[in-house]
Amino acid sequence: MKVLWIFAHPEQRSLNASLMREGLSELAASGHESRVSDLYAMGWKAVLDASDVHAPAPPGPQGPAPLAASRGADARLTVGAGQERAFLYGGQGEDVREEQRKLAWADTLILHFPLWWFGPPAILKGWLDRVLVQGFAFGLRGDDGRTLRYGEGGLAGRRALVITSAGARESGFGPRGVHGDIRHVLWPLLHGTFWYTGMAPHEPFTVYGADRLTEAGYRAYARRLRERLRGLPYEEPLPYRSERGGDYDGRLTLRPGIAPDGEGLDVHLGRGGPDRPDAAPVRETCGAAALRG
Amino acid sequence: MKVLWIFAHPEQRSLNASLMREGLSELAASGHESRVSDLYAMGWKAVLDASDVHAPAPPGPQGPAPLAASRGADARLTVGAGQERAFLYGGQGEDVREEQRKLAWADTLILHFPLWWFGPPAILKGWLDRVLVQGFAFGLRGDDGRTLRYGEGGLAGRRALVITSAGARESGFGPRGVHGDIRHVLWPLLHGTFWYTGMAPHEPFTVYGADRLTEAGYRAYARRLRERLRGLPYEEPLPYRSERGGDYDGRLTLRPGIAPDGEGLDVHLGRGGPDRPDAAPVRETCGAAALRG
Repeated sequence: MKVLWIFAHPEQRSLNASLMREGLSELAASGHESRVSDLYAMGWKAVLDASDVHAPAPPGPQGPAPLAASRGADARLTVGAGQERAFLYGGQGEDVREEQRKLAWADTLILHFPLWWFGPPAILKGWLDRVLVQGFAFGLRGDDGRTLRYGEGGLAGRRALVITSAGARESGFGPRGVHGDIRHVLWPLLHGTFWYTGMAPHEPFTVYGADRLTEAGYRAYARRLRERLRGLPYEEPLPYRSERGGDYDGRLTLRPGIAPDGEGLDVHLGRGGPDRPDAAPVRETCGAAALRG
Repeated sequence: MKVLWIFAHPEQRSLNASLMREGLSELAASGHESRVSDLYAMGWKAVLDASDVHAPAPPGPQGPAPLAASRGADARLTVGAGQERAFLYGGQGEDVREEQRKLAWADTLILHFPLWWFGPPAILKGWLDRVLVQGFAFGLRGDDGRTLRYGEGGLAGRRALVITSAGARESGFGPRGVHGDIRHVLWPLLHGTFWYTGMAPHEPFTVYGADRLTEAGYRAYARRLRERLRGLPYEEPLPYRSERGGDYDGRLTLRPGIAPDGEGLDVHLGRGGPDRPDAAPVRETCGAAALRG
């Protein structure tokens, strides 16, 4: 594997930092390559702002002008399209481009963070906001003109794993736990980010009871993480349904015959077999592929 | 109402900025008070770092020392406890304290943002990470020694509303839509943040198709927002179950008799009536109340 490990914890002596070192050591021992983006150590700029976005070129007979010259005082910042223009015409910051190059290189993305307010810390959310831009990670079109999303997209061909830690006990994150099933809590990442951009999301690796973990408990989690990483190349991802696989209609809702009595987020998990014609491996499309040297 | 309106969009000429002006004007016309935290305009610091956290005092006979003096070179940054110490002993930054004072003043919190990667922009995630600290918003205990969460907590007695915008069409965010039901997508905010800290979460107000909205479409949403805000004081919040209301057991999972065949996040919605003994209004506890002058 070629693993890009995005790490978002402010403390290098944290449980999570120790786990990352275990994981990287396991990857090296198994002959895999890895690169790390330690967002706090890098001083990653979390906030998407005007410097990430380019205004539209003024209308003219020449088509779009170079973007540095096209930024008028009246230009209104529109985020999706403005990020795409910056991506296409060289207007992105070097920090963003470097992360995109790492993603283009990788076949495996790991997002590793403590669960804060049931999601990633702001610094990691800002990595997603600024790096996964339209035209690179999503917003691409297939040969039939339809937008590639959910199973296809600029990052297709990659697997993606969340490694996270929660102070609470595991039972509270089960199917009937008060916090919600961990896969539902992480839906915006697993389905809305990984799967949306074409990456294959794997079952998250979660350290529970992180605030009260004993040394023996830590060693058990470290061992499980090493085993998990060794098996990752052979592991089946979560079987989310592909948008263009036949299960959704033109309004992007599940067809009546699919999980007819189902409700909740699990209706988007296919069961494999004949009702899941999209079971073939996801294809890599343009997007990140264009950046690979 | 006393409304604290947290706004997170980088462009003052955006659809969302226009909607906020409509909303604030409606609140004023209806005789409500409001305060605004426009996070981009304020240059809000998104990233929780060592400056938000205080190290533990060295052990000694005097109990905890003033925190400014207790920060040893070997101190390991532990986020939850470190933020609580900073809150209790005056070690927080003035930006964080000011937001906590606004929350203490408010009876209604509005989080208003464009949906980026199915969640709030990093600058708003960082507001949650830095402002809603242990000891202020959560981690408080009731008279019986149990932790107050989910229906009770430091911010109890307040209502909370998400106003957001999505580029996609509404059908994709329905119960069988590919993006997931909007209430499930927003679970980390509605249940994991609002309800967790004791606030009463209301049905989110979502602008769909935001990238293609016509002027007439905008006016319709603006009218609906005004109506929604006028009715907000009389509106029932989402009926999530209280942690201490009798529906959950000691492992924080739903008791077998509650929604026995249910699965997914909606099992945490009570139906009112006799199986929901917690239907009484949430009580305000310590937490934010301590900050109110």
